[in-house]
Amino acid sequence: MKSVDQEEISRRRGIYFQGFGIYGGLSGLYDYGPYGSRIKDKVISEWKETMLSEGNVAEFDGTTITHTDVLKASGHYDRFFDYSVECESCHTKFRADDLVEKKGVPAVLDRQWLQDKIRELGIKCERCQGDLGEVKIQKLMFSVDQGEGMEPLFLRPETAQGMFVNFKEYYRFFREKLPFAMITVGRGYRNEISPRRALYRLREFNMMECESFFDPQNEMWIHDPADDVRVAFLTTDGVEIKASPKEAHEKGIVKSQPMAYFMGLALRFYSRVGIDLERMRFRKHRKEELSHYSSETWDAEALTDLGWIEITGIAHRGTYDLTNHMKHSGKDLYAQRVIPKREVNRAIKEIDYQKVKSESPESSAKIIAALKEGKTSITIGNQVIDLNRFVTEKEEKVTIDREDFVPVVIEPAFGFDRIFYTILDHNLSSREDSGYVLLKIPYTISPYNAAILPLMNKDDLDTKARSIFEDLLKKKFSVIYDDAGSIGKRYSRYDEVGIVYCITIDYDTIKGGDVTIRHRDTKEQVRIKIEDIPDYLGTDPWDGKKN
Amino acid sequence: MKSVDQEEISRRRGIYFQGFGIYGGLSGLYDYGPYGSRIKDKVISEWKETMLSEGNVAEFDGTTITHTDVLKASGHYDRFFDYSVECESCHTKFRADDLVEKKGVPAVLDRQWLQDKIRELGIKCERCQGDLGEVKIQKLMFSVDQGEGMEPLFLRPETAQGMFVNFKEYYRFFREKLPFAMITVGRGYRNEISPRRALYRLREFNMMECESFFDPQNEMWIHDPADDVRVAFLTTDGVEIKASPKEAHEKGIVKSQPMAYFMGLALRFYSRVGIDLERMRFRKHRKEELSHYSSETWDAEALTDLGWIEITGIAHRGTYDLTNHMKHSGKDLYAQRVIPKREVNRAIKEIDYQKVKSESPESSAKIIAALKEGKTSITIGNQVIDLNRFVTEKEEKVTIDREDFVPVVIEPAFGFDRIFYTILDHNLSSREDSGYVLLKIPYTISPYNAAILPLMNKDDLDTKARSIFEDLLKKKFSVIYDDAGSIGKRYSRYDEVGIVYCITIDYDTIKGGDVTIRHRDTKEQVRIKIEDIPDYLGTDPWDGKKN
Repeated sequence: MKSVDQEEISRRRGIYFQGFGIYGGLSGLYDYGPYGSRIKDKVISEWKETMLSEGNVAEFDGTTITHTDVLKASGHYDRFFDYSVECESCHTKFRADDLVEKKGVPAVLDRQWLQDKIRELGIKCERCQGDLGEVKIQKLMFSVDQGEGMEPLFLRPETAQGMFVNFKEYYRFFREKLPFAMITVGRGYRNEISPRRALYRLREFNMMECESFFDPQNEMWIHDPADDVRVAFLTTDGVEIKASPKEAHEKGIVKSQPMAYFMGLALRFYSRVGIDLERMRFRKHRKEELSHYSSETWDAEALTDLGWIEITGIAHRGTYDLTNHMKHSGKDLYAQRVIPKREVNRAIKEIDYQKVKSESPESSAKIIAALKEGKTSITIGNQVIDLNRFVTEKEEKVTIDREDFVPVVIEPAFGFDRIFYTILDHNLSSREDSGYVLLKIPYTISPYNAAILPLMNKDDLDTKARSIFEDLLKKKFSVIYDDAGSIGKRYSRYDEVGIVYCITIDYDTIKGGDVTIRHRDTKEQVRIKIEDIPDYLGTDPWDGKKN
Repeated sequence: MKSVDQEEISRRRGIYFQGFGIYGGLSGLYDYGPYGSRIKDKVISEWKETMLSEGNVAEFDGTTITHTDVLKASGHYDRFFDYSVECESCHTKFRADDLVEKKGVPAVLDRQWLQDKIRELGIKCERCQGDLGEVKIQKLMFSVDQGEGMEPLFLRPETAQGMFVNFKEYYRFFREKLPFAMITVGRGYRNEISPRRALYRLREFNMMECESFFDPQNEMWIHDPADDVRVAFLTTDGVEIKASPKEAHEKGIVKSQPMAYFMGLALRFYSRVGIDLERMRFRKHRKEELSHYSSETWDAEALTDLGWIEITGIAHRGTYDLTNHMKHSGKDLYAQRVIPKREVNRAIKEIDYQKVKSESPESSAKIIAALKEGKTSITIGNQVIDLNRFVTEKEEKVTIDREDFVPVVIEPAFGFDRIFYTILDHNLSSREDSGYVLLKIPYTISPYNAAILPLMNKDDLDTKARSIFEDLLKKKFSVIYDDAGSIGKRYSRYDEVGIVYCITIDYDTIKGGDVTIRHRDTKEQVRIKIEDIPDYLGTDPWDGKKN
């Protein structure tokens, strides 16, 4: 097997390619073509199905343009940047931490540390070997101009924040019971210093994020972690342990039960979309790698031709986000838990109407209105009146059986484009001798159910093939019609883009009413009746029955 | 029946609501909540299925951030703006053409005309009756800042351009045969002067666009226009004619055959998602309404509580886009047609090697290289050399059987959010007496297959209900579990969000193994066995069998 240039094949075959190619392209912006966008739809639908089948998970679909206050509360406004360093000769920009990591040194995200390390290790420009300048800060959020005299807004750097600010909508939807989770599939944006390797680091990317909410006193998902698949867990000590998510939690490798659960869910999803679990591991973040909000984070990493790459991050975000949004918005984002009934003293404020009435009639009406709005002072005429003197405080005994708390959040965030990259990496092969390329993705994410191929473009073979094609379309199969080139070439064409079945219409089809179905992986060819095609295509060969 | 405040119900029930509510919201930005985002997914999937089942349609998924040259070529960079007018007292901004149209005068999109008309009609501020200032131009594209020293990019105002610039990828995919179409579902952005009425005019919106490509000598879709449904066609003379798309085309009301075909396809889609075709019409654009690129445009309009609103535009874009992208990019976006074989004279340029050799050896190598790159002059040392003198032109007879042409484009562009608005408008009703709300959307776009409701939260009813719930989830049904409140209240709750079936687990379920299924519209209740639930839910009641 030859190593495969995934990007080259993807461009040539219409799987994905750099955007705006006729204008020379734009760095970090990629499009999905006719095959890629269909595979994309199916991978996303597998993910949604995996998540939603949990029963306590609901979808959210929010805007990409984001309120600036949201990003101030989340910390992105102040803290979301990378360290860039520019070559003094050729002016190419690099991420300072990338350069250090490439020397095998785990990077610390600190400007001075990176500056010193680059000097110490004698790192030069990758392109021209020139000297590198000062390490600088580059903001990673794209700002969006609203026009003259208006503050700019921002494109979301993650979909998560839209979910946090709508926590209460979903809390009500789930009848005020925890745990539950929200999911969003959509675009995120980061103004990367050095976008690279096609889908690996994009400036506009696709995310599949899940935010799950827990009572910190009962941080448990509704199901147990999976115990059927064992993968590698790499701890911060560099120890690698093979375990199932359930075992990893029981052994204390993964502290949080929901985190272990989501690891299992991720593995289930990966395997449904054809990622090789033998080339997967979970790696725990070192303390200095952790985001400012996180106490425990695990990355799901896949081994690809780019090395180990992060395709999913599962982060314990604690109460960070909800607390900060409460602080910044002044709105209540609490959940409530039932507690044993007890009596407590509660201070209550009452308006002292007697005192108010001692003011002039007009003033007293205004004072009462202001007090009801919760104001503490009011200006009448030129006079500022302190309203506290019209309020009396009393203590009252009340029975309570609920108390407020801030839910903790665990977030499994799936990077769609890197998952797509990994699917191709794990399933594309190429034969050295012939250059023959095969994309062995599962039937469920195959871009089309089948290709319909008349052997020749004459003698009614094309008419017959067309009628089979149209009939399958009516039955809601996704099929592709192709009459150009030799049958062998057409088989190869569809092997390259992962279509499992090729259906050939030949002279015997016209006589006997049967067709040849060829299987992508086995190359096995079977003859079946035309009327049996829908049943055949309707059965997932990975699910049983065939192969 | 009471008139229904769709926005209020949507907010209360988690269908859609303004984004960033806890921060006071942002104008023109709306989110889809737990029910809305599921309905959204299903409407989009119905649309994709409708379009892709044509067989010569493929999907495209491109970035929202767009290359500036693309928007210069498309005309958006220079011409995409609205006319705004600001109140001199309260500083509210309005769209000048909106204000004029509200007075029943069709607006002409010209600054001076609008300025004169506002004076002539004595139009004042809608909010405070103040005087209006000068009519000004507001650019509608959002620019995106790439950082210091870089030109800004733009968020796409339509998804169309991404498809045009990738025309050749899809031309190859369809084995160089026209007609074919590309579709994209994704977000578009317009910095609207006065976003309003929730989903009606958004600054970030969802589009479902289709670009179809034709040989102008054979501008025909692969199927005939539909002849089964008759709707109203409103011509530019104000004449309204009831016709099927096929009749409208035959009578010359709709000139282009593909346009008539897409009208039929749109009607098929509308009816699948529950839009009332009796409240639909096609309205032809008046000459002064037409976009700069279009020769014929029809809007599909729906009658809602906002009046007639455009939900889809079907525009004949001619060769405008491809021609301009060729001009600006210098790249070939031609298609080819087969023509009768003929001999033509073709001028060919040849390098006159003899003449080149008369130069010095170093120079001649450079000259040959430059000639091969197609250059017309070269500088060697200080001397500029005109390369034309090394080229001889000859005429050659060649046989050709193909010629280049620029395809024409017909674009059916569906505004997702307005379609969503219309679906709710046509299916929401409210009873004056009780306030009871019903959302009568088709089963195919219902947010969940069913709600699972234990009659009481005790006596094992909840355990039984949970086990039925979990079993249905495993079988890939989308179901919702609810044990809070009286059964009548729960029925109402799910009627409001369009869930067709409520399944109640009661004491007889435990004894007899059967459940009550209640139908949203008929309120009919039937008893069926637990094991028959999947079959029951798997059958679309609109498709036959039930009701």
